[in-house]
Amino acid sequence: MFEIAELGHTLDKQTYNQLVPELRTQLLIAQQQLRNSDFPVIILISGVDGGGKGDVINLLNEWMDPRYIRTNAFGEPTDEERERPTYWRFWRTLPPKGYIGIYVGSWYSDPLSKHVYGLLDEAGLHQELVNIRMLEKELTDDGALIIKCWLHLKKETQKQRIKNLEKDENTRWQVTEKDKRHLKLYDQFCVSAEKVLKATSTDYAPWLIVDGSDIRHSSLTVGQHILERITHHLALRQQAKTQTPAPSVAPLLDPAHPLTPRCILSALDLSLNLDKKRYDSDLANYQAKLARLVRAAREKKRSSILVFEGWDAAGKGGAIRRITHAIDARNYQVIQIAAPTDEERQHHYLWRFWRHIPRAGQVTIYDRSWYGRVLVERVEKFATREEWMRAYSEIVHFEEALTRHGILLLKFWLHIDPDEQLKRFKERELIPYKQHKITAEDYRNRDKWADYEHAVNDMVARTSTQNAPWYLIEANDKRYARIKILKTYCERLEALLAGNGREKTP
Amino acid sequence: MFEIAELGHTLDKQTYNQLVPELRTQLLIAQQQLRNSDFPVIILISGVDGGGKGDVINLLNEWMDPRYIRTNAFGEPTDEERERPTYWRFWRTLPPKGYIGIYVGSWYSDPLSKHVYGLLDEAGLHQELVNIRMLEKELTDDGALIIKCWLHLKKETQKQRIKNLEKDENTRWQVTEKDKRHLKLYDQFCVSAEKVLKATSTDYAPWLIVDGSDIRHSSLTVGQHILERITHHLALRQQAKTQTPAPSVAPLLDPAHPLTPRCILSALDLSLNLDKKRYDSDLANYQAKLARLVRAAREKKRSSILVFEGWDAAGKGGAIRRITHAIDARNYQVIQIAAPTDEERQHHYLWRFWRHIPRAGQVTIYDRSWYGRVLVERVEKFATREEWMRAYSEIVHFEEALTRHGILLLKFWLHIDPDEQLKRFKERELIPYKQHKITAEDYRNRDKWADYEHAVNDMVARTSTQNAPWYLIEANDKRYARIKILKTYCERLEALLAGNGREKTP
Repeated sequence: MFEIAELGHTLDKQTYNQLVPELRTQLLIAQQQLRNSDFPVIILISGVDGGGKGDVINLLNEWMDPRYIRTNAFGEPTDEERERPTYWRFWRTLPPKGYIGIYVGSWYSDPLSKHVYGLLDEAGLHQELVNIRMLEKELTDDGALIIKCWLHLKKETQKQRIKNLEKDENTRWQVTEKDKRHLKLYDQFCVSAEKVLKATSTDYAPWLIVDGSDIRHSSLTVGQHILERITHHLALRQQAKTQTPAPSVAPLLDPAHPLTPRCILSALDLSLNLDKKRYDSDLANYQAKLARLVRAAREKKRSSILVFEGWDAAGKGGAIRRITHAIDARNYQVIQIAAPTDEERQHHYLWRFWRHIPRAGQVTIYDRSWYGRVLVERVEKFATREEWMRAYSEIVHFEEALTRHGILLLKFWLHIDPDEQLKRFKERELIPYKQHKITAEDYRNRDKWADYEHAVNDMVARTSTQNAPWYLIEANDKRYARIKILKTYCERLEALLAGNGREKTP
Repeated sequence: MFEIAELGHTLDKQTYNQLVPELRTQLLIAQQQLRNSDFPVIILISGVDGGGKGDVINLLNEWMDPRYIRTNAFGEPTDEERERPTYWRFWRTLPPKGYIGIYVGSWYSDPLSKHVYGLLDEAGLHQELVNIRMLEKELTDDGALIIKCWLHLKKETQKQRIKNLEKDENTRWQVTEKDKRHLKLYDQFCVSAEKVLKATSTDYAPWLIVDGSDIRHSSLTVGQHILERITHHLALRQQAKTQTPAPSVAPLLDPAHPLTPRCILSALDLSLNLDKKRYDSDLANYQAKLARLVRAAREKKRSSILVFEGWDAAGKGGAIRRITHAIDARNYQVIQIAAPTDEERQHHYLWRFWRHIPRAGQVTIYDRSWYGRVLVERVEKFATREEWMRAYSEIVHFEEALTRHGILLLKFWLHIDPDEQLKRFKERELIPYKQHKITAEDYRNRDKWADYEHAVNDMVARTSTQNAPWYLIEANDKRYARIKILKTYCERLEALLAGNGREKTP
């Protein structure tokens, strides 16, 4: 794989000086067009030590307008980063649309170096690479352009370069103990690197392997490659605006089709209920129990994320308050999902959920959530069919990152029937401080009941997983619903703390 | 000061149960109105240990809609927080307009506890309290409502409460070693607390001292107080919309008035220049020197913040590139200041600068900056006279927080004359990839030259301080300007690293 990059490509100074001005002008023009376009560019500069990553990045910053470039280097994770899933630190640095993010060290660094040092076996590496492929697919599906450059160096050249750096007192600081250790591991490093590059050179985010032995040659190659990729992507996006894309996703069965399975919601028994006396005693018991469990989870630094979805007026707010009542206010956050802000709109739709992931030991409750993509955005056609179809696997991947980190994730769908909803709308209109909750919009939404039901069915079918199952709550009786939710949360927390939960320890 | 809060106020359960429903309704209504208004509410719940801070906060979250409340508790600062000025962790949590932020532990906790433990002397405490007063003034000037409640407890009651908590296994966890230590320091604590409360009970952010001995009484008192303050503030803001405010700031001398001092910019000798040969050698020397110094600063974890302001086409971009050329791209960030995003508009105008403060050891370069408030916003009347007049002291306070933390702050004004500007506009129009930089707007701005000159003069007069002086750069000759900037940065960095800089070590 690296043979061609070991041929010792060089470029003489004169040719270099001839080529650079034109490349710079072209890069600046491309960058300007990028500023007015609707996608971010993510550039990964990886490779062997001494391959000139730093030099190339410095030149890129010099050639282009540095005001629209964010260069991200990653050292040891900070404590704030360690308390979140691995990719959180990358998500928080992703460039917004129109910007370029350059990454020295990236999602590749950790798996690769662990594999070289024998801290990650083949299965572990494979799992990490699947995650990387999914991450890159999600980003490119959303329009991002990912450019990955690998700067290679022959073993002898690497050795020589380290020697040269050490000779000069101005560059000596660049050589670390780690570099020397890596030199010894060169052969193993190449074996691991080839595995990684092979598995992650995809059509949507291919690798470019560059001979790093001559900085003039390598930097110009990388610069030219970036120019071509950006220009090509700009043209693609332009084209996409004027053409209807061929449907790239499989069609779904019509809900009315005889083969369509019956809706999972129709299996719920909405007559389930609790009398006031039983409710009062259950509520007190479960709240006391929950208070204890949440405190214990906090001490063990285990976070919970609770997602509430459901019909309008299904009682999400009331159920949430019965939970928060049992938790110290310093220990939870309720996040109400409204329309994204303009900063959020400049990113992948999951970005705004990544940014709110709590630190260790906290309880975060989402009143509506990322499922908006496959519910309201699907039904109201705010998202294209491709977008919401893709979202199922994106969401599953996102939730896996949460549960893999040891976060307890519970998802509740509060189900009521249309009659009950109408009754509650009418009731709300009679209470002064609840009137604002009811608008003409709410009544209009009732006409789309069947569409939403269908969307809920697909959602449950495609996103209910072992580690993050959907809990469907019969909510025609508020008391029954609240107790069932409290009970579920208690049971899952208890299992988690006893160590026989389905979740892994982080 | 605490006598009245030691009278042992109580409220019987029946009265409490009668009063709570009405208060809740009123709080919910106030919160709804707040959602549609243009200010945030910051609630500080402080006081002695065992004063029931946690209980009160839990009740507030229960009584109001928790989706629009953010409760912030502060433990030990994280490493990301330690690498920034002290108030950074508070700025990052400030609620946006329409939201309520509840603080358990706040900017008061650290100075107060340090003073009690004898780690902060009177002068140090006084300095901290001045900073607090300025912070609260800035926030309230911007429209924020700050509500500060102090829950007091008699020594005997505190002792008794800790005993009771310890008796019950469900509450025992709440009592820490720190609580017991604090009990012993009770008298000293009250002395320090009185000093703090006296010095920070201002007209714009007064303290309410509450008897914390009975949770029903104290929570209802706090709730009622919050309701009244929000209602009052809503009315005030409403009134402010329909009335022209009386000018609260001193008038400025007309620029044409004979007593107006001459403009500081006219003292610059714009004929200063460097020939190409000298420039090339100086550039190479200073860039090599800067590269060394920035690396040394990085190792010592000392950050720099460079601010570039100046006339359009004064050469900011070129000067910035001559600096970044000498720095590893992983070590700097260039931030181009454009219009604020909608998230940023929901906060104090300095919030968007606080959020970008770099971690330790980094170089951050601002292409335009917070000075927009007293330059373009003043001249174009985007800010009211009160707002930009106030901004001078707000900026000085902000910059003090930076330099006090050990950050090297350099501010450059690049000065050219109108003829030179016109010449450069014409030149730019001939270069394809620079054409986008020139718009009709730029030509229009030339008519306001005198207004801007006046604004620059006021800015220098009011914000050039010992630790953060303005460097006025003669920039008609680009070579001269670039070298002067590089030289200045080198000299200040060198002095800083030699320990005889004007900046304190963090």
